[in-house]
Amino acid sequence: MKTLKIIKIGGNIIDDVEVLEAFLKNFTKIEGPKILIHGGGKLATKLANQMQVEVRMTNGRRITDASTLDIITMVYAGKINKNIVAKLQAHQCNAVGFSGADGNTIVSVKRPVKDIDFGFVGDVVSVNTHTVNLLLQGNVTPVFCAITHDENGQLLNTNADTVASELAIGFADLYETQLYYCFEKQGVLQDVNDDDSVIENITIESYQTLKNLGIIADGMLPKLDNCFHAIDYKVHKVCIGKPEMLFNTTIKFTTIQA
Amino acid sequence: MKTLKIIKIGGNIIDDVEVLEAFLKNFTKIEGPKILIHGGGKLATKLANQMQVEVRMTNGRRITDASTLDIITMVYAGKINKNIVAKLQAHQCNAVGFSGADGNTIVSVKRPVKDIDFGFVGDVVSVNTHTVNLLLQGNVTPVFCAITHDENGQLLNTNADTVASELAIGFADLYETQLYYCFEKQGVLQDVNDDDSVIENITIESYQTLKNLGIIADGMLPKLDNCFHAIDYKVHKVCIGKPEMLFNTTIKFTTIQA
Repeated sequence: MKTLKIIKIGGNIIDDVEVLEAFLKNFTKIEGPKILIHGGGKLATKLANQMQVEVRMTNGRRITDASTLDIITMVYAGKINKNIVAKLQAHQCNAVGFSGADGNTIVSVKRPVKDIDFGFVGDVVSVNTHTVNLLLQGNVTPVFCAITHDENGQLLNTNADTVASELAIGFADLYETQLYYCFEKQGVLQDVNDDDSVIENITIESYQTLKNLGIIADGMLPKLDNCFHAIDYKVHKVCIGKPEMLFNTTIKFTTIQA
Repeated sequence: MKTLKIIKIGGNIIDDVEVLEAFLKNFTKIEGPKILIHGGGKLATKLANQMQVEVRMTNGRRITDASTLDIITMVYAGKINKNIVAKLQAHQCNAVGFSGADGNTIVSVKRPVKDIDFGFVGDVVSVNTHTVNLLLQGNVTPVFCAITHDENGQLLNTNADTVASELAIGFADLYETQLYYCFEKQGVLQDVNDDDSVIENITIESYQTLKNLGIIADGMLPKLDNCFHAIDYKVHKVCIGKPEMLFNTTIKFTTIQA
């Protein structure tokens, strides 16, 4: 089986033009089939402010009403995605931008309303590999924003970490998939204030212990849940760390293990 | 040679949700490989107003400064393109959204400044068919917005009629390409006030006469120039009319002939 690298970058890379440019230049050097997934960064909030659309958050999560979905679609699928594609082309990496609607690649359902109505937020139900695989086989690199659709014409805002893990799972029958979550820290840290205190390996057992001890908490929980979900569904390798982990063999990072 | 239909729709279809929905439903029924190109409609101007970005026009053409390019990228490649793709998927048409940067498909140069600086406007220099053709062969329908790139990381605003004709020319070696310009009139009219006065056939000779008589003037001139440019470069068939010309064999429209 061929290896497929699925690489997710977050806001800290997106928001800084020079950091993004350096990352993309290195990204083009990664050999073999690869998929890039990008988050949104601060640009959507900035545009919402400019358009005087109220940004509503609940427990750190954005409520996606119709105006907010428009903004997200414009910023994520338009401005950020197309600029990344153009920059990759400048480095001779033949990229094509994707949302989950493109190629019917990521199908989701609007999250059912329980205590909170999150609005136009999608929970992934299936991944169709056909179209993306045509491109991978043709040496083309798909670049995904974190927007999915419901197969009835409705776009839905979806967590970028989830998009990455679901793609890795979806392609696990066709490729030996490796999932890389790139963020601002060196990995999962033993001490949140010490960037050098990377926990280099986490298993499902040690994850339980780290949760019980409160060492892994808050925003790291959904990220780690995505990681173990991927491992459960035949993703070969899941790593968390700075983007340099992809290019520099001496840097520390966290590997999630079955 | 297989036939490839290249269909451009303008603002009158984009701006009306119901008209767009009806068009897309019919579009999915067109058999064989096809490419859709859409203009921008009034949404970009609306967003510019909301963001208090000044809209500057010269001779009816938009000056594209950096803020305007951002708006165009967000509206054309983001909101309009992804919503069209999602709607096509709802009708079981497997679509993928494209700008000219995606797949390095349409390369342009920033228009040189003579009397007027149009800003980030691109004049097409080449079309690369590789990536789009992978998708066409896999029964996928590419949907293009009118944004191109310069291969150095810069997106450029490009006339949608030109994107359509250049794609038709680019694919003329691989397919018998047919180019359809859909707009609000039945075709090129003998009398601009009489929608039934369609000129059903125009040759390069009769075009000259119609120009001299002032029957074809203003905004129709660049459209017709695009048509004859396409015919000159081996595009098999060029038609102008209402979108119904694609689905209804009794409706009149204009055919451009060599």
